[in-house]
Amino acid sequence: MAKSSAKKKYALGVDYGTNSVRALIVDVATGEEVGTHVYPYRAGVDGILLDPKDPNLARQDPADYIEGFAKSVRGAIDAAKRKVRGFKPEAVIGIGVDTTGSTPIPVDREGTPLALCPEFKKDLAAYAWLWKDHTSHAEAAEITREAARDADGYLTKCGGTYSSEWFWSKILHCRRSSPKVFAAAYSWVEQADFIPAFITGRLDPLTLPRGICAAGHKGMYHEDWGGWPRKEFLAKLDPKLAALRDRLAPKAVPADQKAGELTAALAKKVGLPAGVPVAVGAIDAHLGAVGAGIKPGALVKILGTSACDMLVAPMEGKAMDVPGLCGIVPGSIVPGLFGIEAGQPAVGDIFNWFTSHLAPAAYTAKGDTHANLTREASRLAPGQSGLLALDWNNGNRSILVDPLLTGLLVGQTLHTTAPEVYRALVEATAFGAATIIKRIEECGASVKEVINCGGIAEKNAFVMQIYADVCNRPMKISRSAQTCALGAAIFGAVVGGAYKKTEMAQRKMTGVKSTVYRPNKAAAAVYAELYTLYRQVHDAFGVPNAQANLGQIMKRLIAIRDRARGK
Amino acid sequence: MAKSSAKKKYALGVDYGTNSVRALIVDVATGEEVGTHVYPYRAGVDGILLDPKDPNLARQDPADYIEGFAKSVRGAIDAAKRKVRGFKPEAVIGIGVDTTGSTPIPVDREGTPLALCPEFKKDLAAYAWLWKDHTSHAEAAEITREAARDADGYLTKCGGTYSSEWFWSKILHCRRSSPKVFAAAYSWVEQADFIPAFITGRLDPLTLPRGICAAGHKGMYHEDWGGWPRKEFLAKLDPKLAALRDRLAPKAVPADQKAGELTAALAKKVGLPAGVPVAVGAIDAHLGAVGAGIKPGALVKILGTSACDMLVAPMEGKAMDVPGLCGIVPGSIVPGLFGIEAGQPAVGDIFNWFTSHLAPAAYTAKGDTHANLTREASRLAPGQSGLLALDWNNGNRSILVDPLLTGLLVGQTLHTTAPEVYRALVEATAFGAATIIKRIEECGASVKEVINCGGIAEKNAFVMQIYADVCNRPMKISRSAQTCALGAAIFGAVVGGAYKKTEMAQRKMTGVKSTVYRPNKAAAAVYAELYTLYRQVHDAFGVPNAQANLGQIMKRLIAIRDRARGK
Repeated sequence: MAKSSAKKKYALGVDYGTNSVRALIVDVATGEEVGTHVYPYRAGVDGILLDPKDPNLARQDPADYIEGFAKSVRGAIDAAKRKVRGFKPEAVIGIGVDTTGSTPIPVDREGTPLALCPEFKKDLAAYAWLWKDHTSHAEAAEITREAARDADGYLTKCGGTYSSEWFWSKILHCRRSSPKVFAAAYSWVEQADFIPAFITGRLDPLTLPRGICAAGHKGMYHEDWGGWPRKEFLAKLDPKLAALRDRLAPKAVPADQKAGELTAALAKKVGLPAGVPVAVGAIDAHLGAVGAGIKPGALVKILGTSACDMLVAPMEGKAMDVPGLCGIVPGSIVPGLFGIEAGQPAVGDIFNWFTSHLAPAAYTAKGDTHANLTREASRLAPGQSGLLALDWNNGNRSILVDPLLTGLLVGQTLHTTAPEVYRALVEATAFGAATIIKRIEECGASVKEVINCGGIAEKNAFVMQIYADVCNRPMKISRSAQTCALGAAIFGAVVGGAYKKTEMAQRKMTGVKSTVYRPNKAAAAVYAELYTLYRQVHDAFGVPNAQANLGQIMKRLIAIRDRARGK
Repeated sequence: MAKSSAKKKYALGVDYGTNSVRALIVDVATGEEVGTHVYPYRAGVDGILLDPKDPNLARQDPADYIEGFAKSVRGAIDAAKRKVRGFKPEAVIGIGVDTTGSTPIPVDREGTPLALCPEFKKDLAAYAWLWKDHTSHAEAAEITREAARDADGYLTKCGGTYSSEWFWSKILHCRRSSPKVFAAAYSWVEQADFIPAFITGRLDPLTLPRGICAAGHKGMYHEDWGGWPRKEFLAKLDPKLAALRDRLAPKAVPADQKAGELTAALAKKVGLPAGVPVAVGAIDAHLGAVGAGIKPGALVKILGTSACDMLVAPMEGKAMDVPGLCGIVPGSIVPGLFGIEAGQPAVGDIFNWFTSHLAPAAYTAKGDTHANLTREASRLAPGQSGLLALDWNNGNRSILVDPLLTGLLVGQTLHTTAPEVYRALVEATAFGAATIIKRIEECGASVKEVINCGGIAEKNAFVMQIYADVCNRPMKISRSAQTCALGAAIFGAVVGGAYKKTEMAQRKMTGVKSTVYRPNKAAAAVYAELYTLYRQVHDAFGVPNAQANLGQIMKRLIAIRDRARGK
């Protein structure tokens, strides 16, 4: 009980991640985080419903979202009460929400998720189609083909390829593979829109506010072609998709707009006053960027199970089209600026895959497997393992935008160890990160600083140093460890009236840590060499019809290895 | 005590493997094995001296060879006495020897290995340079370059490339990297020649019999150019190498020739009569082929830590030159026939590497790791893992003849399991095996049957079935589990006078088991498809300057995977 809350005002951010939901209460004047609580989802494996026969499938139970709101918010309020003398829930002036995305949910006429209806309880197609569900790759390819032919240039805003992770791919796949669910779905709602709709009681699919962030980055929504893709285009994919367009609210709005007010029933349940303003929802990465202090020239990387790269650019002048980046949407991150998104579909997930499936007992028996492998891996010099990996175990989002890519490891000998492979996987994700920065700069945008956030940025000095060395730039770390929830809270502060503009709230409520990972010159030189090999293998396996000459790859890896070993 | 030995005659085969030496006593009339004993080497890790800083280095202690002879032979005699009523060591009429190779040993003027001299005790260069030592790759490349320019066509008999595993590469590397040892070495002796020399007391390097098998396959010895490579050629590599030529016995001889007689001292030590004839030594794989019943049209595969493929062909007509096969030497396997050798530098070693370094506790905690992984891996259908590997963790011997190649694995997702990787590695070695058979047949030789022997053929039905499916041919198994030692014993029988010709001894003393692994049609069809992908990746990474188009590899693996999973 260190502080008094007299006259202080707070915003609440609620951040729906892949495995859990976090509520965070923040002082709107300083960004100080006064109370937080995490609710892990109950369904499936760590909140994800899987199909053992199909590694592409990943779904979630909307019941977890509903239960998670009440439990996490209640817990955060209790925590704030413990931390701040005299904390009063009435001082919470606004609520912001972020979620994973694109995570579309089929809903009935009332906006109720079909998964909550008894007749669909056992049908995974009726659940939320989690962002990393890749079952819809055939439909994504089909949408890309149709969109490429279309005069509207639908692909110019999403990096040239429509992804299997996105809204229309998933809905079209449902239409093809689960016609019963598709027929029962009056509409489809992004998770980022469902939560504000649910907590404000505005569930009617025809009117519930659709956030520009999910709509613009994942739903092909853009004012250039009048919002959602035209009916004529959707009808080419399937006439019923065209019909669905009428059952989406016509205009998507940014997160500094109010979605509604907290319902009395929920307010009572969680211990907040009824009627607190709720901001329009947005995707976690985008609000994470806001919470990390994104501004023109500052690339924000959210490093967790996957990586999201966020950039904002002024909207004056010509819109920047960057091939291979996932989306360029006005107002999707900071209202008034272009939001540009890129990413890697698996980063921490690759490390977790390795620790769960291929780490021997010497590293798993005692203590934390990641820590044990990191201890050994951090003793290796760059290049010393002789290994090179591609970071595509979950496909490639940027710059190839192709989910039908897979992992690759080259350079194994009979002496290759688990820490060597682990380090090669970390390096592979760093090479993937460097590829995105290079592409951004090739397109004329300058990356003046890189601010990292997310679990890996927060906790993993080993990974961050490799990122600094591979990208050959300083890696800064966001002051907040909960940038997504903080970003959501910032919009809570804006809709609650504490600030007129998002940038003003960011200036007061965000910052970076004093610890900066700076590149080591010698390491950066070796990684520059390894990067050229990475890029050759990357292009050979990732670029359709590329002619590659890989006959020297193994020999060059051996030469670098021998040099690193002082031979 | 089932049988009487009255009038029976026996031959002794002594087989020096990578980790141990085995002695085997065989009834010369039937091939029945009446006594065997294995002595595991004491030095280093499982008999191999390693350098933690250099994964290419692998040496052995000649003291293990000496001690191993006495211990294994004595043990085999004791075993024979236990098994055969009235067995008398006097009934042993001849001794044959096989060893790994090329495993050259630097020796002094008396033929004593330098490693046994106190001043070289600590110098790994003074030890036996084990076949799988790859420290000499630069020298191998240099020898290949020089030999390619030479009018004598030195490379035509060894597949077009001289290997880092072979005699002259290792000696030249010693000259460059350990000049002190090189200067102290009066001569160099292959392990296959050292053992007969040691046990017959004919150690003088100038006269000790050199076997045609090691000399011809590893030492560039061929009658076309007068035996060892000409001095002018060796002088281009190093003048001291040319000088060394004078300190090798000028004529190499086949294993049906007598090297000498067992010395009285050793005879007494092991319990044999003095003066038993000892055959000229040969390389283990070659004698393994003899023991497995090799004959024209029958390919013998010895599947253990590595794989050796052996073929014999009539010497009438034109000699067959097969690019990428390791050697074609008259009389090196069966005297009077061309001996043709190919191989894979790691097979079981790759599986062992995986179980030691990357198998998680679920498979290592209880029981045998290979058995545990095999149980799960054998439940997978061909193609189901979506993985494809290259079998080059220890370089490639056939058909690329390049030690500077490494392993590769492609197709990993976030769900890839250890048994899936294990199976992919087994399949990779099978693809490597198929590549060798294809190359032999491309060159006009017909492979009418495949007889397998060695530890994997003997014990591993899972691996053998995959070989049958991948190669799409029946895989037969040699009746003897100790074909190398049996092959050595066959030459013991020949020099002991039981047979005039090797083929006659083979007819009586060898055979195949009734169990034959037959290809499954459906599996073979999937593997044919996977093989085309293997071959694309193989050529892309293995053939210098190859132009490759690999953009479809990952997608085709996914398509095959989805089909195998019934999607």
